[in-house]
Amino acid sequence: MNLLGIAGSLRAGSFNRNLIRAAGAAAPDGVTVAAFGRLGEIPPYNDDEKQKAFPEVVTALAEEIRAADGLLIATPEYNYGVSGVLKNAIDWISRVPDQPFKDKPIGVMGAAMGGLGTARAQYDLRRSFIFLEGLVMNRPEIFVGAAHTKFDEAGALTDEATREILTDYMKALAAWIQRVR
Amino acid sequence: MNLLGIAGSLRAGSFNRNLIRAAGAAAPDGVTVAAFGRLGEIPPYNDDEKQKAFPEVVTALAEEIRAADGLLIATPEYNYGVSGVLKNAIDWISRVPDQPFKDKPIGVMGAAMGGLGTARAQYDLRRSFIFLEGLVMNRPEIFVGAAHTKFDEAGALTDEATREILTDYMKALAAWIQRVR
Amino acid sequence: MNLLGIAGSLRAGSFNRNLIRAAGAAAPDGVTVAAFGRLGEIPPYNDDEKQKAFPEVVTALAEEIRAADGLLIATPEYNYGVSGVLKNAIDWISRVPDQPFKDKPIGVMGAAMGGLGTARAQYDLRRSFIFLEGLVMNRPEIFVGAAHTKFDEAGALTDEATREILTDYMKALAAWIQRVR
Amino acid sequence: MNLLGIAGSLRAGSFNRNLIRAAGAAAPDGVTVAAFGRLGEIPPYNDDEKQKAFPEVVTALAEEIRAADGLLIATPEYNYGVSGVLKNAIDWISRVPDQPFKDKPIGVMGAAMGGLGTARAQYDLRRSFIFLEGLVMNRPEIFVGAAHTKFDEAGALTDEATREILTDYMKALAAWIQRVR
Repeated sequence: MNLLGIAGSLRAGSFNRNLIRAAGAAAPDGVTVAAFGRLGEIPPYNDDEKQKAFPEVVTALAEEIRAADGLLIATPEYNYGVSGVLKNAIDWISRVPDQPFKDKPIGVMGAAMGGLGTARAQYDLRRSFIFLEGLVMNRPEIFVGAAHTKFDEAGALTDEATREILTDYMKALAAWIQRVR
Repeated sequence: MNLLGIAGSLRAGSFNRNLIRAAGAAAPDGVTVAAFGRLGEIPPYNDDEKQKAFPEVVTALAEEIRAADGLLIATPEYNYGVSGVLKNAIDWISRVPDQPFKDKPIGVMGAAMGGLGTARAQYDLRRSFIFLEGLVMNRPEIFVGAAHTKFDEAGALTDEATREILTDYMKALAAWIQRVR
Repeated sequence: MNLLGIAGSLRAGSFNRNLIRAAGAAAPDGVTVAAFGRLGEIPPYNDDEKQKAFPEVVTALAEEIRAADGLLIATPEYNYGVSGVLKNAIDWISRVPDQPFKDKPIGVMGAAMGGLGTARAQYDLRRSFIFLEGLVMNRPEIFVGAAHTKFDEAGALTDEATREILTDYMKALAAWIQRVR
Repeated sequence: MNLLGIAGSLRAGSFNRNLIRAAGAAAPDGVTVAAFGRLGEIPPYNDDEKQKAFPEVVTALAEEIRAADGLLIATPEYNYGVSGVLKNAIDWISRVPDQPFKDKPIGVMGAAMGGLGTARAQYDLRRSFIFLEGLVMNRPEIFVGAAHTKFDEAGALTDEATREILTDYMKALAAWIQRVR
């Protein structure tokens, strides 16, 4: 079972990129998580540009989504919502013919320095997938708060409680994918 | 009273840009709406880039916000949420020192082809301004649905019911600005 | 396939009760919708009372939910949210041991006089079912606006466009139930 | 300055009732918080009943709201939303002629055993006050998580960090009321 991981922020030391990596390490045997690495190349969505052609990076992401058995999305929370950067990627992908989120099993999670651990952003993201007909797992949910205390400088997860939560989460996500695929 | 208008989509014939223009035309005497025209130049938010320097276009937008007596934001609704492009601009502005949304009177509205007229996006946007401490007017609200039937090819508003709603809205927004400024 | 319909308001001429009835009439052959009729008997949720005993009406509703192949919930929108009456019923049911919403296929819809057709309420309701692990169909969605113009005095649906939408909706809901049950 | 406190759950040992009391104790000199104590008497909202007469308890609550300089609402979070009991009270009050939430300064907070401290419920509640034209303070916000560890058996606040947050909150709320009243 091959999952595509998408982290919604661009800085090199992104907590959400670290979280995707930690989720992959915590996944059950036979489940892999490959991280999409080109989010920063996606231009601002402009319908006039789309009429001419989809950017190559958008087409590439759409193909990776199609090829995956499921998605694992880790969103930051900026200003009590999904990062514009992540939402912009979704806005592009949603216009690709035969849009690839439809019927795709999805896990939503997130990490932030604040106490609520991206909860507000996650529910907005889940609402987008109602429109896009993604199949988002209900529970468990993961809200990693105080993220700056849970990864080391190299980006490795150091918090054992979070690792256990991730392990359970990945097991549940694999079962969800089996169920609805 | 000088308002800054921000429309959250980039295509040339954007309904929301048209709506900002129509709102300016419907505003009471002495109230002007100048539209910000450089949204498409704002790069994807990247905290590493921000550490080096704010892009000039972000600094320019922050200054226009500071100089305005109030903001008028017209958001599209993409995938049941705020457009990534608009949210990305807010994500940048929110990091500018002494962030300029604080205590700024704001009107939120939106136009879309669908029936709900960007309602879902507007409430997400309003939640962002809780964090940013903007002073968003409660009511009236404007949800322009079926927007493709309400503007002509040149982008001029042709729907009289919408014009009346805009006229009332702009009067209320001016009164709100007087009240909380 | 037997569905349980729950309308979230109490007045005799409730649009949402009418909508449930119209949905039953529009359902494919072999799909029935029985309406729960005792919402008004459910007392205000009080945890101290629950410790003593569940009210009989709550136990009865829980059993009807368990027995149904799926749920069809029609919510009004009061003050931009789910009616307190409907939410209170959910709050009781959620505490019943082995809570019956878990893994239950659910359709959410709603009718109101206003233009947005209960959209705000529906998304709040859907969020509750994330916690409760209900399996809410993504799309189609039904937002019946201007409901006072779409039913006659006896409560019968008179709007043909709404009937067509309901017919498609019920077909999709039956397929969703088949899929996830 | 006299505030009316409304706690949204009914059990005797309600964390939110305790939180209202602690907020009163933490308020600046000259600011008092009186708790509304009759929430459990409010019947399920039924428009047919309303047509006949408003229940006395609803009229009484409306008068207390009118008389107060501001409101302090402490909501529990049941099933990722506002408690039905609290929402039902708001649904009744919203129909009282010359509805009393309009232009009333309001502070929203909440306490729960879970980690997110009622955040989901608070944003739904804030959305209701857009419709009702209440003037909800943006920030600071209070999300009391793990509430069962922060009050003693008599209901007194024992957590010093929460007390400091409450003290700052009440100072800010008093300033907000001064500003918008």
